[in-house]
Amino acid sequence: MPISSRRPADLAIVNCTALLSARADRATFGPGTTLEITDGRITKVDTNPASPTIAGKVIDAQGMVAMPGLINTHTHAAMTFLRGAAEDVSVTHWFNDYIWPMEVNVGERDVYLGTMVAIAEMIECGVTTFADHYFHMDMAAAAVQETGIRANLGSAFFSSQGRTGLDTSVAFAERWNGQADGRITTSIAPHAPYTVNDDDLRAAATEALRLGVKVHIHGAEDIIQTNASLRSRNETPIQVLDHTGVLEAGAIIAHGNGILPADIPLLAAHRDRVGVTHGPKGYLKFAMGPLTPIADLRAAGVPVGFCTDGVASNNTLDIFESMRITALSQKQIADDATWFRNSMALHMAGPESAAVMGMRGETGTLTVGARADVILVDLSGFHCQPAHDLGAALVYSVQPTDVRTTIVAGKVLMRDRALLTIDRRALLDEFRQRAREITDRTHGRTIQDYTQ
Amino acid sequence: MPISSRRPADLAIVNCTALLSARADRATFGPGTTLEITDGRITKVDTNPASPTIAGKVIDAQGMVAMPGLINTHTHAAMTFLRGAAEDVSVTHWFNDYIWPMEVNVGERDVYLGTMVAIAEMIECGVTTFADHYFHMDMAAAAVQETGIRANLGSAFFSSQGRTGLDTSVAFAERWNGQADGRITTSIAPHAPYTVNDDDLRAAATEALRLGVKVHIHGAEDIIQTNASLRSRNETPIQVLDHTGVLEAGAIIAHGNGILPADIPLLAAHRDRVGVTHGPKGYLKFAMGPLTPIADLRAAGVPVGFCTDGVASNNTLDIFESMRITALSQKQIADDATWFRNSMALHMAGPESAAVMGMRGETGTLTVGARADVILVDLSGFHCQPAHDLGAALVYSVQPTDVRTTIVAGKVLMRDRALLTIDRRALLDEFRQRAREITDRTHGRTIQDYTQ
Repeated sequence: MPISSRRPADLAIVNCTALLSARADRATFGPGTTLEITDGRITKVDTNPASPTIAGKVIDAQGMVAMPGLINTHTHAAMTFLRGAAEDVSVTHWFNDYIWPMEVNVGERDVYLGTMVAIAEMIECGVTTFADHYFHMDMAAAAVQETGIRANLGSAFFSSQGRTGLDTSVAFAERWNGQADGRITTSIAPHAPYTVNDDDLRAAATEALRLGVKVHIHGAEDIIQTNASLRSRNETPIQVLDHTGVLEAGAIIAHGNGILPADIPLLAAHRDRVGVTHGPKGYLKFAMGPLTPIADLRAAGVPVGFCTDGVASNNTLDIFESMRITALSQKQIADDATWFRNSMALHMAGPESAAVMGMRGETGTLTVGARADVILVDLSGFHCQPAHDLGAALVYSVQPTDVRTTIVAGKVLMRDRALLTIDRRALLDEFRQRAREITDRTHGRTIQDYTQ
Repeated sequence: MPISSRRPADLAIVNCTALLSARADRATFGPGTTLEITDGRITKVDTNPASPTIAGKVIDAQGMVAMPGLINTHTHAAMTFLRGAAEDVSVTHWFNDYIWPMEVNVGERDVYLGTMVAIAEMIECGVTTFADHYFHMDMAAAAVQETGIRANLGSAFFSSQGRTGLDTSVAFAERWNGQADGRITTSIAPHAPYTVNDDDLRAAATEALRLGVKVHIHGAEDIIQTNASLRSRNETPIQVLDHTGVLEAGAIIAHGNGILPADIPLLAAHRDRVGVTHGPKGYLKFAMGPLTPIADLRAAGVPVGFCTDGVASNNTLDIFESMRITALSQKQIADDATWFRNSMALHMAGPESAAVMGMRGETGTLTVGARADVILVDLSGFHCQPAHDLGAALVYSVQPTDVRTTIVAGKVLMRDRALLTIDRRALLDEFRQRAREITDRTHGRTIQDYTQ
């Protein structure tokens, strides 16, 4: 599908094996492909290049797979500070005894540092876009701007903050949407239906519609939350999101493990604007019970994307790992080894995760016109050889360090494992110092109490 | 616990943070530790070194964790040829339509090449000992001898081979036990109770006792096998292993997902010589149903170790991955986030896996007198920082490439990610060529039919 270009491309990737498309039943790879990139978008995907490429810069990707950069559809990036700080505890203890008392210590500079570390880790494992849900978000936006990654950012709030939380979230969404050459988009980010009241959810939906952004919210995180909601108000969390207008406005819903069959038609009615985000590592680690009903959601056309949540629960920001654990757990749950083929994992990682973010066709695909978010993955290591099945290698064998090069909007952020926009040593020195201080809980304060 | 040594150590590892012990409830790390190694064994573990170390060779492991080399308690190493060759299929199709027709093509040289690739991958991800169950095992032994890794090798057989299979297995076990400076030990390796008849199982047990080796066998691999055995002979596979004397002789049992509560006392009665090996990635991928009852086996004192099985099902030979997926799936199954602490994963990876191999105190532990099988793991990467909890970093964050140095019997096999005993390029060139030929199934032959 070559398209002629009047001027030389800004960047060309030549000799790669490109992931041309990923459908549920089949992933198609094109060996010897040339990708051309200009003004931050893919301008040519040539699977049979006839003549040498002329471009401002050429990357020879011989022996590498080029695939769409990975998308982390829900995280709390700055929580890198708390990696390993609350292990082997129940979710209630995790919130009340560790995370919320520690987060009291997190200041603006910390959010910048923590987000920078998260972005470094994500670029290193091939994530080119992430959806973030945290606070002091101007600092997160600064980190995104500086590092060159793409993100959808939402300023989280609880109704316990009064009007301030919502106002801050709306003002942030308005201020930053479309910034950093369009790499930053925004959401309104109420925490969850059990921490944000219906009036504030309605206001969030109204403001999201006004600004043309999504609502990014935790919903039906596990079956315990759903049951608590049914007991206290005779509605599921998804029903609450429906009647408050959140689904109508469009939403990224994390994590949906507690979605009931009756919720699915509500989500399906808004499937052009609503998606669910899935990161099974943390759910299994918390022994959350039933997992997100991916099969039913997919059957209803509701996009489901991959996420990692924050590293305080998930320990890593590695979407390859989310793909792998999802594929394994879905086969086991369905009691069918032939379900959830590796192509389906790649489909969820690409087009479906992009749809969850509201970026259908914009990222998650190597097609002409899409944003040039591309990673080069080296499958020549012993652990990937022989590469009888490239999809299987990407889903079941690949290691994060096999990602050699990460490109966002046509700009190379990592080349041959070297980060080009982040000063590793200086960042880690300051980060480690603050990490020790942030885990101090002797002050006895907390952000809020976890009762659903 | 310094022990004075009359002559300088052969090798000293200084400034490491050593995993001093791993119990189910607690892992203990000693910063600033010096390990000394002489004649292939650990001769000193000094957590408070007073004076500079004198040794033939010194490795400065500042910033690294030193831990016992990992143990892969059950694999079919040479199956690297078939990585990705049979994806997203049921276990029956996998055997009958792919693996056994392909394995007909595997010759002696192939077993050497395939095992070499497996060993390369294992050294790269910190595995220092593996239990192998395959055929043409003289070739596997040659690869072990050449590369410097440690292994327990068993020549697999079916009763369909007549007397030849058993005889070959016994002769191999006798010929190679204790070879390669003791790095090679052996087992008698009947395939499984549904492919080997009771007479041959009895003979295997007798020969194992005579040689002082174990029986390494598939048993109760999944609940379907157990149910088939109950239907056809009114005994579970574990009961068959009991009454044929296999448990009495001592056994490595793979994979035990179909172990029933009634089997546990039989295993417990032989827990000084019988262990079960667990590699959940492949089980989930095959949608095998219930997983190995690890909690019940541990409660009965039966050692359970980690494995990967062959890469044709598991795709990787990464024991860190087996640890991680086991911890996650065990928490979910137990419906308890506080169960299977990261220390328990480290305990299973070290002392318990060693016990499964019949190597209690010999490997899987950094203590004076143990074999000097040590890996150095770099936790300074973004994905492991901050290291609030070293156990959590090793179980939930670490990447295979964080293993910087792999030492077996005091000999460095990988230093700063460079393999010192394997010629990567030459090996992969020949391996890839044969991999294409081995997957040819047009001949219409097979090794045998998979009906339990």
